Amino acid sequence: MTFPTTPACTPVRTADGGATTLFLGAADLQRLVHRLGLPACIAGVAAQIEADFRRWPDFDKSARVAAHSDVGVIELMPVADAARFAFKYVNGHPKNTAAGLPTVMAFGLLADVATGTPTLLAELTLLTAIRTAAMSALAARHLARPGSGTMALIGNGAQAEFQALAFRDLVGITTLRLFDTDPAATAKLQANLAGQGLTMRVCASAADAAQGADIVTTVTADKTRATIVTPAMLAPGRHFNAVGGDCPGKTELHPDVLRAARVFVEYEPQSRIEGDVQQMPADFPVIEFWRVLSGEAPGRATVDEITVFDSVGFALEDHAALVWLADAAARQGLGRPLDLVAAPADPKNLFGTLAPAGESAARLAATEQATAIAA
Amino acid sequence: MTFPTTPACTPVRTADGGATTLFLGAADLQRLVHRLGLPACIAGVAAQIEADFRRWPDFDKSARVAAHSDVGVIELMPVADAARFAFKYVNGHPKNTAAGLPTVMAFGLLADVATGTPTLLAELTLLTAIRTAAMSALAARHLARPGSGTMALIGNGAQAEFQALAFRDLVGITTLRLFDTDPAATAKLQANLAGQGLTMRVCASAADAAQGADIVTTVTADKTRATIVTPAMLAPGRHFNAVGGDCPGKTELHPDVLRAARVFVEYEPQSRIEGDVQQMPADFPVIEFWRVLSGEAPGRATVDEITVFDSVGFALEDHAALVWLADAAARQGLGRPLDLVAAPADPKNLFGTLAPAGESAARLAATEQATAIAA
Repeated sequence: MTFPTTPACTPVRTADGGATTLFLGAADLQRLVHRLGLPACIAGVAAQIEADFRRWPDFDKSARVAAHSDVGVIELMPVADAARFAFKYVNGHPKNTAAGLPTVMAFGLLADVATGTPTLLAELTLLTAIRTAAMSALAARHLARPGSGTMALIGNGAQAEFQALAFRDLVGITTLRLFDTDPAATAKLQANLAGQGLTMRVCASAADAAQGADIVTTVTADKTRATIVTPAMLAPGRHFNAVGGDCPGKTELHPDVLRAARVFVEYEPQSRIEGDVQQMPADFPVIEFWRVLSGEAPGRATVDEITVFDSVGFALEDHAALVWLADAAARQGLGRPLDLVAAPADPKNLFGTLAPAGESAARLAATEQATAIAA
Repeated sequence: MTFPTTPACTPVRTADGGATTLFLGAADLQRLVHRLGLPACIAGVAAQIEADFRRWPDFDKSARVAAHSDVGVIELMPVADAARFAFKYVNGHPKNTAAGLPTVMAFGLLADVATGTPTLLAELTLLTAIRTAAMSALAARHLARPGSGTMALIGNGAQAEFQALAFRDLVGITTLRLFDTDPAATAKLQANLAGQGLTMRVCASAADAAQGADIVTTVTADKTRATIVTPAMLAPGRHFNAVGGDCPGKTELHPDVLRAARVFVEYEPQSRIEGDVQQMPADFPVIEFWRVLSGEAPGRATVDEITVFDSVGFALEDHAALVWLADAAARQGLGRPLDLVAAPADPKNLFGTLAPAGESAARLAATEQATAIAA
C-alpha cells in the first residue's frame, strides 16, 4: 500500500512522552568547554577516568573493532558495566589535513543496559583530545619522577596543547621543550599557549627536546613504524608518555627503549595489537595501569627507574568522558532531544506507527486503494 | 584559562562549508515510508541486499560485537568495503514492551572510508524490520518450493506484518496461517493487514499453523532455548524461515529439524554463535546464502527437499538498507545536517576551535585573566 503523506506521522515518543536521546553536537561541546574552561574539563574528565579505572573489574571490556584501509582506520570502541553501555566511533586519517579535514573525528553514545535505550549521543572529537591528555597526565602523576617540571613535547599537532595543559595542571610541568618536523605546528602551539604560564623552548630535534626533560611526550601522527624515541634519549628516572603509537604498524619507540623501562599500558589485549609493545614478544612484561590506581601494582619504584606509559586510548576513557559530559551538560542545560530511535506509543505495533495517529494502516491502505481506483 | 561564553563559538563546518553528517530521525523514516509505501521500501531494500550479497567478497566482515546482560543485548554491527564503512547499533530486550519500550531499537551510520567522515546517521528501527523481512523473502525466493502460496507465521509481534508483506510481494504468498501465544498480537496483525489481499487463518498452535504451509516463518522473541518448530512439523518440500533464533541461548528449531534440512545462513562465523545452528556441532554443514545468489552453490535442489534459512541478521543487510536509505532520502529531500563531529576551519588547530573566530585561545585567556584581575 501507499500511505498519504498527510496528516503528519505520529510523533516519536517514549512511554513518558519524551524523545529518547539527548544530543550534544560540536557546537555544544565548544560551548561547554568555553563555559567551564579547558582546565576544569581536563580535571573533571581525569577524575572520572580515575574513578572508572579504580573499578576496572566492573566493566565488560573488549579490544576495539578496527576497519583499516591504506589511508586510515575507522574504529568502534564499546565498553559496558551493569548500568551503562558506552561506545565511541573514531577515525584516524593522517592525510586528512591536506583535504581540510581533521585527522581524528569522533562521536560517542551512552545507553541504558536495562532497556537498550540510547540516552546520550555526543560529538567527541574535542572530548577525545581532552580525555587523551587527562589519561596521559593521570598516568604520569603516578609514573613520573616526583617534582617533574620539564616535559619534551614531540609532535605539536592537534593533541599537543591539551597534553601541555593537562601536564601543567595535573603534574606540575612548567617548561616545555618543543619539537615538530613541521615548524608551523610548533608556531601554532606557541601562539595557542602564550600567556598560559608555560616556558616554551623550541628545539632542533627530538633528541634535543629530550635534553634534561623529566618527561618525554610523543604525540606524532604518521601511520608508520617510526623511531621517534631512540635509546640515546634514555636517561635515569625519565618517564616516556607515548601517545602516538596507537595502531598496528604505527609505533614511536625503539624496542630498546621499551626493554630499558617498566612499561605500563591501559588494556593489555588491545595494547599488544596497537601499542608500541606490538614490536615486542607476546611475553614482554607490561602492567595494566588500573592496577597502580587500585594498589595492586606499584607505580614508579625508584627515582632512577625509566617508565613508559604506552597509551593507545581505551574505551573506558571514553565511557568516563561521556559520563562526565552527561553530568556537565545537564548542569549547563546544554543539548537537545533527538529522535535517534523510534519509540512508538504501542511498542508491540511497529507497523502501526506507519499510520497517522488514530488510523490503522489497513484503513489507510483501503482509503488509498479506493483513491487509486477513483483516480 | 576560562573562556567567556560569548561571542558564540565558531560554526562547525567542513572545508566546503557544510556540516558533515546528514541526520534522518524516526519521524523522517516514517515520512519516507509513508511517501514511498512499505512495499516499495521492501522491494528497494531487497534489491540492494541482493546487489551487496552478490559482491560479498568485496566487504570486510566481522561477527557483531554483543554486550549481553540478564535482560537483553546491545550490539554493534560494522561492515565496510573500499568506499563505505557502515555500522548499526541495535538492542534486543524482550521485556521492554512491559515498560512501554520497543524490544528492538536501532540506528545506523554510513562513513567515508577515505576520510572517516560520517556522512549519514539514521534511525533504523523501522528499516531493521524492513530489511529483515526483505532478507527473509529474498532467501525464500531461492530456497522455497516454486509456487509457494501458503505461509505459517508463528509469532505475530512487531516484525510479523513486515514478513507477511515481503513474502506476499517477493514470493507470492496469498494465505497466512497465524499463531501467537498472545491472541492480542494475532488480532493486531489481522487488523493491520486487513485489505492487503492476504487470506488469514488463525490457528490453535504452531503445529496447526504449519499444516499445509509451503513456508513456515518463525519470528518469536523470547531469549530462550525454545522449540517452536518440532520434527512433527517437517514435511517434504517445506521451507523454514527461522528469524527469531538470533543470539546465544535463543533458538526456535529442534535439532532434528536442522538435521533433516539443507541449512542456509548469512555469515557462518556469526551464525555458529547466534543462529539455531548454535545447537549443532561445529562441523554441521551450512551454506552461506550469498553463494546461492552468486551461483557458487545451488539453492533448492528438489521439490521435496527441506530447506532452512537460519537468519540472524547480518551487518551487510544494514549496509544495504543504509545505502538504499541515503539514496531514497536524497530523492525525497528528507533529513537535516547534524554537527555530529567537529570540522574546524583549521583541522591542525583543534585547540584553536575553542576560541571565537578571529581570536586565539591565548588572547582570550589573557583577556579573561585581565578581567579576573580587574574583577
